[in-house]
Amino acid sequence: MNDKDCLKIYDSERTKIDRILAKLLERDKPESLYKPCDYILKSPGKRIRAFIVLVSAKAAGGNFKDVYNAAASVEILHNFTLVHDDIMDNASKRRGLTTLHVKYDMNTAILSGDNLIAVAYRSLLKDSTRNTGAVIESFTHSIIEVCEGQSLDKEFELRKQVVLEDYKTMIRKKTAALVEMCCSLGAHICGGSKELIQQLQTYGRNLGLAFQIQDDLLDIIGDEKEFGKSVGIDLVEGKKTYLFLMAQQAASGKDRQLLNKFVNNKGISKNQIKEFKEMYERLGVIDKTRKEVERYTRLALNSINKIKNEEAKYLFNWLARMLLTRKK
Amino acid sequence: MNDKDCLKIYDSERTKIDRILAKLLERDKPESLYKPCDYILKSPGKRIRAFIVLVSAKAAGGNFKDVYNAAASVEILHNFTLVHDDIMDNASKRRGLTTLHVKYDMNTAILSGDNLIAVAYRSLLKDSTRNTGAVIESFTHSIIEVCEGQSLDKEFELRKQVVLEDYKTMIRKKTAALVEMCCSLGAHICGGSKELIQQLQTYGRNLGLAFQIQDDLLDIIGDEKEFGKSVGIDLVEGKKTYLFLMAQQAASGKDRQLLNKFVNNKGISKNQIKEFKEMYERLGVIDKTRKEVERYTRLALNSINKIKNEEAKYLFNWLARMLLTRKK
Repeated sequence: MNDKDCLKIYDSERTKIDRILAKLLERDKPESLYKPCDYILKSPGKRIRAFIVLVSAKAAGGNFKDVYNAAASVEILHNFTLVHDDIMDNASKRRGLTTLHVKYDMNTAILSGDNLIAVAYRSLLKDSTRNTGAVIESFTHSIIEVCEGQSLDKEFELRKQVVLEDYKTMIRKKTAALVEMCCSLGAHICGGSKELIQQLQTYGRNLGLAFQIQDDLLDIIGDEKEFGKSVGIDLVEGKKTYLFLMAQQAASGKDRQLLNKFVNNKGISKNQIKEFKEMYERLGVIDKTRKEVERYTRLALNSINKIKNEEAKYLFNWLARMLLTRKK
Repeated sequence: MNDKDCLKIYDSERTKIDRILAKLLERDKPESLYKPCDYILKSPGKRIRAFIVLVSAKAAGGNFKDVYNAAASVEILHNFTLVHDDIMDNASKRRGLTTLHVKYDMNTAILSGDNLIAVAYRSLLKDSTRNTGAVIESFTHSIIEVCEGQSLDKEFELRKQVVLEDYKTMIRKKTAALVEMCCSLGAHICGGSKELIQQLQTYGRNLGLAFQIQDDLLDIIGDEKEFGKSVGIDLVEGKKTYLFLMAQQAASGKDRQLLNKFVNNKGISKNQIKEFKEMYERLGVIDKTRKEVERYTRLALNSINKIKNEEAKYLFNWLARMLLTRKK
């Protein structure tokens, strides 16, 4: 087993997940509901959450084939969050494609998101032949966490004072909770031990935190074409990201004025992005953020040391390293 | 057992459900999410769906106390649909209270609705100690039906041609599916037989249809003060209700012109409500609709004849008769 094997497995499984999702609602009626749902399930995605569910099953001695429906369910759930978040964020593009509420309308997007939640549960139930209560509970808990996280995220946009600890709580709920759930879901379904499930949850939580902080970083250092979304969009939207809050801790003088202006105006204009990036570099924020991503990745890697299934262990290890070095 | 006993039991259980719902999210954080969720769970409701779950448990030989969390869960789910429907319908009042998206804002209402879905599942899981898979599946299926029904409902507002059969499909999904699920949920949890569950589902489906058609009727004949919402609002909003579609079948000449104008203008102005009501009376639509409500009520009552538990049977019988004669 080496990194090349991992990439091959991931690519192959990603294709399978894509196919399952593409078929799932294709022919369902009414079209007014299912065409938009189908549109979103067919839009390209990394399918990392689904892949994690598969590896999680393997970690507990199960097989990928035991959990394809569960793997699909977490992607469906993830897509629900994207549809509703895009409404709330007033986003017109997502991964280069028109967002659902722009392509259709807001009501359709609200309803499609609602429906996707239930479709996700339905898909999950297909694979939940044992431990059903625990499986559904873990899934449900992650949705609540995601909603709480999104609520905090929106709240932070309005609040003048947000500290780094608040932010960590927010991303732990908004992003990491779902990854944490995915990491344990396959093992739950395949009857993994409590100890294993806890190790996988710790892995997932830290991986999710690393992923989100990396996302904040890529908004600043990412390449526009490769990243698929505009650089600096978080700044324009007035999001108090990990980098911004770190800068607030370090800044003084003119830099502090600039940050205060950002808070008061709820964001900056596009032509100020360069100025902000230079400030971040000057304050060492980019470097510190990169180190934080590495730290969470290390914590994730440490927690899977004891996994007995070598293939699952290697795949989880590869995944964490891959996400650490991603450019988009 | 008589009708007075039924009313006493209903009133007492309704109070208990109110109390459970009022406590459920009262102290949860973040407030930006849970204050609106709490607001909606505390707003007054008939709690009929919750009551049905209790009686359903009794029908299968269980006790009310086995299913209070499940009973709460269907009310939470129902409230989610109200919150999101009110956004889509642009409604500013619900049962005399300000709707969530008006009291807070649209984003908060979207997110609160989402969260309520998961909170409903969490509540249901507390009571699902056996048959968990079947219980969750039935719950999930009803959410999908409700979304499909709501989608059809919104579609019908835009479509020029809607026939009565389309309308029945829509209300079967939008309203009756949830009542059908409630009627079987308690029995599912308490291990009721397949036969019993089917009888309860048939009861619920027909009760739900009767309820919705009655609702359409009350929009026209209801008393404004007692009904808690304006009379004729469906007409103003351009909703093609049961009465409207019946009128379309029967109308000719000037009446037909009036109906066509309604379709083309997507509704009427408030001062035309009286004219429409008179037309409905002239065409015998109000009478025919009342008969249809009675017919579905009869179908509901017929399907619970064989229930062995006398108390549950009487309660279900009373409930159907009470809904038939309700004024609001």
